[in-house]
Amino acid sequence: MTGGPYFQVKSHNCVVIGIDLGGSAIRLSTVSRSGRLRYSKRVDISGKRERRFILPSIITNITELIAIEKSRGNKVGAIGIGSPGIIDLSRGIVVTSPNFMDWKGVRLKAILEKAVHLPVVLDNDANAAAYGEKWKGAGRKAESLVCLTMGTGIGGGIILNGDVWHGADGMAGEVGHMTVNPDGPLCNCGNTGCLEAYSSATGMVRSATESIKCGKRSALKKLGTGDSSNITARMIYDCALNGDKLSMGILAEAGKYLGIAMAGLINILNPEMIVLTGAVTGAWEFFMPAAKQEVKKRAHEVLTARTKIVRGRLTDTAGIVGAAGLALKRL
Amino acid sequence: MTGGPYFQVKSHNCVVIGIDLGGSAIRLSTVSRSGRLRYSKRVDISGKRERRFILPSIITNITELIAIEKSRGNKVGAIGIGSPGIIDLSRGIVVTSPNFMDWKGVRLKAILEKAVHLPVVLDNDANAAAYGEKWKGAGRKAESLVCLTMGTGIGGGIILNGDVWHGADGMAGEVGHMTVNPDGPLCNCGNTGCLEAYSSATGMVRSATESIKCGKRSALKKLGTGDSSNITARMIYDCALNGDKLSMGILAEAGKYLGIAMAGLINILNPEMIVLTGAVTGAWEFFMPAAKQEVKKRAHEVLTARTKIVRGRLTDTAGIVGAAGLALKRL
Repeated sequence: MTGGPYFQVKSHNCVVIGIDLGGSAIRLSTVSRSGRLRYSKRVDISGKRERRFILPSIITNITELIAIEKSRGNKVGAIGIGSPGIIDLSRGIVVTSPNFMDWKGVRLKAILEKAVHLPVVLDNDANAAAYGEKWKGAGRKAESLVCLTMGTGIGGGIILNGDVWHGADGMAGEVGHMTVNPDGPLCNCGNTGCLEAYSSATGMVRSATESIKCGKRSALKKLGTGDSSNITARMIYDCALNGDKLSMGILAEAGKYLGIAMAGLINILNPEMIVLTGAVTGAWEFFMPAAKQEVKKRAHEVLTARTKIVRGRLTDTAGIVGAAGLALKRL
Repeated sequence: MTGGPYFQVKSHNCVVIGIDLGGSAIRLSTVSRSGRLRYSKRVDISGKRERRFILPSIITNITELIAIEKSRGNKVGAIGIGSPGIIDLSRGIVVTSPNFMDWKGVRLKAILEKAVHLPVVLDNDANAAAYGEKWKGAGRKAESLVCLTMGTGIGGGIILNGDVWHGADGMAGEVGHMTVNPDGPLCNCGNTGCLEAYSSATGMVRSATESIKCGKRSALKKLGTGDSSNITARMIYDCALNGDKLSMGILAEAGKYLGIAMAGLINILNPEMIVLTGAVTGAWEFFMPAAKQEVKKRAHEVLTARTKIVRGRLTDTAGIVGAAGLALKRL
């Protein structure tokens, strides 16, 4: 909806702003009531993730988007924002965030509401992505789904009866830290054998680095520096495409443990659908066969047949669309 | 509520019947609107679990309870029944049941409704137990909880927003078949490393039997027959009480894997509470320290502190009370 004459003239044509607070960029967009992105902005924040840079930048960009919409005769009615980390939903506070080291107890909702005089809805970024996929993406027809955001880490958002399941303390959906192998590798959280330790970009890079240090042969060796410290998940995927056995094995292992986690989610929640999003899903053809094999082996056979496992449709806009959707719901 | 004069005289004083279809006994009770058991019956069915014995027995006993309540001036308004196995909720069918081998596609709801002319609510036995604990037991003040029924097998029931979460196909809560160790022992379901393979009575007996066959020393050896095939979970508990190291180790291992599963449930669902019921919980002091240690290690630290892990309060009546509660809700 770029706005026909009717929409541009009516001042009660209300839109919302969706914001995705990523590790390398803040992405904002005005979003129509029907869920279409209108005016979008991307603010690179790599190297300046401190609170004193980011908060003013968010406010400036929100103000700019409000002005653009105003000039088209539209009114921004609310703002939704998805943030990584621990969110205190009821008070609108980012308790801690893995991406922003000096964010401790940031009263994001109150700060933004005071600055732009609009209602602000703050949620976890994976919850926002899950809601985005439910509202306008792969889960449009589903009333229940689990969405896994697979990137540097693995986040999760759970939709039940069409709405985000937040849990008693607003912290449900920490699917990345399900134990999939009690004696498995160390995870960023300090625990061992979490899904994230195997099937996130970080987990796969760790696995590749360790294998090469142990002397395993791989095309990855030529791409990395001497101590293989600069291997990336993208390199693993590219090498797998070229038939590199180690890279293919790492992706299959990531798939195996993803499958174990998904089987658990299916047995516990019996959702209609599992939606996988994030950069790692680009390697779908390499990890999904092993994942499906584990699901078939470990989830109840009736559910294995019925539960859809699909890629997200909104790719990198799920978080923005979902945050906007959550804001619209509160209006 | 045994019924004061007021309740006995008024014919609209409506009660319900709750039924728990167990492997060795059918237990039935009339239950007041406030959740108190009134007249109870227990029908031993060991050795006669065929459909042709059980269905008439259920009907006879329901009819008897209706007559007793009628003689007291009370009317039975509905029947709730919790059955093990795969339940087709929408059609009221027991698809398959581990306890009743010849129960395949039994239209239990329709059969009972036709026989006793009352509305019948059929649900999974673990869902009924979970609802019982929520309604009148340990979870009275909780809006969300996961209940694990730990006996021969491990069942699970999930309460969200005060109600049973059934999932898309009515099969949510299969917590016993979460994978807690991918390379773990074979489970009854045909898979490896399920929670049930470690922490159910069956799992512990398997572990004890294997250990003794491998030549491990234990007081259990004297209790079992030569091939240790008659060891029971009760024997393991009794030996542990007497300081038998193998028995204590088996219970601690059951606790360890229970803790891994509970940490997963906490990370995924962030429930207010986990309620453990069933015969295995009698060995609480032996398995809970190891279980709590794993939860502390593997669940998010905020949630570790907040999530209550408690024993059920209704012991063996949770299923009856819960089935009755589910019937009351439909009235």
